[in-house]
Amino acid sequence: MRFTSETSSNGVREQLFTLGEIPGVLWTPDGATGTRPLVLMGHGGGQHKRAPGIVARAHRFVAGCGFAVVAVDAPAHGDRPKEQEYDRIATDNQARVAAGAELAPLIASFQALVARRTVPEWRAVLDAVQDLDQVGAGPVGYWGVSLGCGLGVPFVAAEPRVRAAVLGLGGALASAGSAARITVPVRFLVQWDDERVPRAQSLALFDAFGSAEKTLHANSGGHGEMPAFELDGDVRFFARQLG
Amino acid sequence: MRFTSETSSNGVREQLFTLGEIPGVLWTPDGATGTRPLVLMGHGGGQHKRAPGIVARAHRFVAGCGFAVVAVDAPAHGDRPKEQEYDRIATDNQARVAAGAELAPLIASFQALVARRTVPEWRAVLDAVQDLDQVGAGPVGYWGVSLGCGLGVPFVAAEPRVRAAVLGLGGALASAGSAARITVPVRFLVQWDDERVPRAQSLALFDAFGSAEKTLHANSGGHGEMPAFELDGDVRFFARQLG
Repeated sequence: MRFTSETSSNGVREQLFTLGEIPGVLWTPDGATGTRPLVLMGHGGGQHKRAPGIVARAHRFVAGCGFAVVAVDAPAHGDRPKEQEYDRIATDNQARVAAGAELAPLIASFQALVARRTVPEWRAVLDAVQDLDQVGAGPVGYWGVSLGCGLGVPFVAAEPRVRAAVLGLGGALASAGSAARITVPVRFLVQWDDERVPRAQSLALFDAFGSAEKTLHANSGGHGEMPAFELDGDVRFFARQLG
Repeated sequence: MRFTSETSSNGVREQLFTLGEIPGVLWTPDGATGTRPLVLMGHGGGQHKRAPGIVARAHRFVAGCGFAVVAVDAPAHGDRPKEQEYDRIATDNQARVAAGAELAPLIASFQALVARRTVPEWRAVLDAVQDLDQVGAGPVGYWGVSLGCGLGVPFVAAEPRVRAAVLGLGGALASAGSAARITVPVRFLVQWDDERVPRAQSLALFDAFGSAEKTLHANSGGHGEMPAFELDGDVRFFARQLG
């Protein structure tokens, strides 16, 4: 793990790093030492580790709860090189949708492919970050919607350090098997008029979680219109589950 | 409107009253004067105006937000006389369920019958309570789940003074038409494993609300197992919508 830059704003220290080929960012409270809860955040498709929605939430989790937060670029996103295989799949999928195919199964199948790389990558990131003095081996949470849900479900299912997860804007097509193996508390976010994820698929994914404690929040509006007040709920959820 | 008793605890004044044949209870902050938001609460089936779930929520709305809260007994509930017609319907329904009929449509049809009485009753209660100096004609909210949802949907649809509603544990069978006429913000509570309200009916009711701003919260568990933390969300919702 190699740190490449460090800045600070509003009491939140931001450190860019690389772990092998993976570019990442770690947020911790200024001057923090000792073990604390850690939230791993997965960004959306076409976004990256420092997308505005990720940074805003990371600042709330760090400044409001004293947590550490880490995010990395998914393959072919942010500072990572393009992947010819992914480009080929994307081009194929566009052609299929143009020819009348459904979008959701194509997205799901692509996310399942990417998850086979990100699950081991994210486990390695957890290992490295939890070795740092200002993070340590405290309870871990996961936050991710859209692509961050598609990649997050298999990760949370595979990683016993994760004690609670916020997921959403994703459907059951690729993830139902993994979802059934998740038993930690889940907060699941749905946009009722999501144009990318069919409502039935979204509800089926929530239904598939094996967790005894799970809550679904659905709001009116499309895929990109999640109301800002849900972030308050994310903070309360992680404070309760990890704090 | 005739007040019959008054007590106070933890800064909350509780006044029992009758309005014609309707027994009710009004909660306001101790020593309150002047106009304030008012929440009308509808109790569940077999319960009454001072059921523990109603009293606990009323205290939070009054002590936490400075609101007034009013609840009345539904026909054939609490201090109101039995209704031979309702008893006959209940007996019929038990026989039908024993013979293999579905429960949900029978509940829905019964609630629609009762709502034809409670909508005008509750409008009269609003008129009377808003005439009081310590309540006044401020914004009105409605809270009701289960029977309180079945009776609440037609009430909220009919009553323009209601600016926001918490509803839940109810389905679309009897209420979809009224629900489509509701345009105020709605917070809708679902128990994912509700043994009385089929999940599809519950989701269909949420879908039917005409409101541009609507949020569904679903939690794992049965009809009577709504988690206590949802009350915090009710308080925040009404504070935002009425405060």
